[in-house]
Amino acid sequence: MDEFEIICRYFSDQSTHRDDVCLGIGDDAAILRVPPGQELVVSVDSLIAGVHFPEDLPAAAIGHRALAVNLSDLAAMGATPAWALLALSLPQVDEEWIRELARGFFALAQRYKIVLVGGNLARGPLNITVTVHGFVPSGRALLRTGAQPGHTVCVTGWLGDSAGGLQQLQAHMAMAETDACMQRFCFPEPRIQAGLVLRDIASAAIDISDGLAADLGHLLQASGVGAQLQVEQLPLSSSLLQHCTQEQAVNLALTGGDDYELCFTVPAERMPLLASHAHDFGYPVTRIGEITTSKSLRCLRNDNTDWPLPVAGYKHF
Amino acid sequence: MDEFEIICRYFSDQSTHRDDVCLGIGDDAAILRVPPGQELVVSVDSLIAGVHFPEDLPAAAIGHRALAVNLSDLAAMGATPAWALLALSLPQVDEEWIRELARGFFALAQRYKIVLVGGNLARGPLNITVTVHGFVPSGRALLRTGAQPGHTVCVTGWLGDSAGGLQQLQAHMAMAETDACMQRFCFPEPRIQAGLVLRDIASAAIDISDGLAADLGHLLQASGVGAQLQVEQLPLSSSLLQHCTQEQAVNLALTGGDDYELCFTVPAERMPLLASHAHDFGYPVTRIGEITTSKSLRCLRNDNTDWPLPVAGYKHF
Repeated sequence: MDEFEIICRYFSDQSTHRDDVCLGIGDDAAILRVPPGQELVVSVDSLIAGVHFPEDLPAAAIGHRALAVNLSDLAAMGATPAWALLALSLPQVDEEWIRELARGFFALAQRYKIVLVGGNLARGPLNITVTVHGFVPSGRALLRTGAQPGHTVCVTGWLGDSAGGLQQLQAHMAMAETDACMQRFCFPEPRIQAGLVLRDIASAAIDISDGLAADLGHLLQASGVGAQLQVEQLPLSSSLLQHCTQEQAVNLALTGGDDYELCFTVPAERMPLLASHAHDFGYPVTRIGEITTSKSLRCLRNDNTDWPLPVAGYKHF
Repeated sequence: MDEFEIICRYFSDQSTHRDDVCLGIGDDAAILRVPPGQELVVSVDSLIAGVHFPEDLPAAAIGHRALAVNLSDLAAMGATPAWALLALSLPQVDEEWIRELARGFFALAQRYKIVLVGGNLARGPLNITVTVHGFVPSGRALLRTGAQPGHTVCVTGWLGDSAGGLQQLQAHMAMAETDACMQRFCFPEPRIQAGLVLRDIASAAIDISDGLAADLGHLLQASGVGAQLQVEQLPLSSSLLQHCTQEQAVNLALTGGDDYELCFTVPAERMPLLASHAHDFGYPVTRIGEITTSKSLRCLRNDNTDWPLPVAGYKHF
């Protein structure tokens, strides 16, 4: 079976259709239409075997994650997802593995009405690179740059689960189906719905892929401010606390990575509006600190003593 | 140096600026504006070390090729290039190598006023995946589907040079600077200008990446027709004919791959219009055959005897 047959068999027959796709997979390029009044929001991310996930992770989880980590970037911009392209390099053809990868990818794509409009398949070390496209009404995207002193720092969902799940996976891959933290690592849920609502509420936003401390750090740097976090306010799941101590869980939340939650800042006058959406998402939104003028990130316990920040998030080089 | 420093140092300071880039590299995603009346044309392609190029190919050539192979897809659609995203996975950080890769990439990007609007940098086996975006006036893209019996089959430029150059490179990498065929492999020139002109002339088009026979085959299949090629009309460069016999050169032209020329079909009534553009491009346009009703591809010598087609283009699996 050659690359064209694989693409036809597993990637070209989709149940989702969109009017803004004039021409999808099958020519030299896709032809797409951006609706009037909308800006295009675009991001790319690669997942590499042995770097971003264990080589023996179930293929459906790899397919899901490859799309999810990109959708998380769209969520952080407040964008509505629309189209994806998939560049896949595979060491060999294992049809069952490819079928599972496609199943994981398309299950998530369908939920957000995303159409796969292009791709590339080649022989090589396992690498899944996804480019996603979304829309945002002109001038309304959420940026990293609007945080100001006094704004409240919030996060969606729970922090540290995914890093805790990865530790569990590395020890007991076979349990992947049953453990909640492992599920968070395998099937992270992009916070698209929160991103859309936050367009009217947040002053700045970022998604948490490298750990809260590192990613909030990027937001602070972009906005030219600092922050003070109450580490005992960090949202920790009961599943995570089954695997480790409170202190370990806080450190996973601060530096563990792969959470794909949103971290955002809210001016005081919009906190009531945020509260009115508290039950819209199916996951919590938690106040974890405040923006300061200091230009640094300080982590405090409830008794206002400093929490020493462990070594920062994953470094590729 | 971490991934963010590398991106800042080598990839974020560009001399090209575009009004349609609302927000480039540095946030969770780029924000872009498609001009009114234009459709978006999008393609993705990966280059993998040891598969698409020899591992020791000069980094500037890798940077150029990674963008060029994608631009070739836009050329085949008749699109004007606009934006690119670059997902790069590297086994280690060699600053000189990265600087050269960026130099090759941006030298080509600048010529077409392309802005790099996003990317991803990770540790892993060498893989360069580029997503390109271009524009085409609504409904005016060149497709693979419009070829009809009687239309003339044409190609831009010269065929087989790149495959001949790769053979030379594999034997004598050090000569890469001086040999014309090696230069064609290292620095293929996307036929953007021809693609734009062909919007008003061609009935169907495709770019030649896997060899003329394979790619023309895709066009024929998409259009539901066949073709008859006069193999002695194939445009062969004097550089290629220095390296090999006429017969070898014809076979490289038919199946060698990596040409990144355009193959297209033209209705009889538009042949004069094509002729009027013959000197616009700086490379030839050559008539090589005719579309037939047969649904197969037949290759003939001038004396109308069959030219046996060698085994088809590169198969990944």
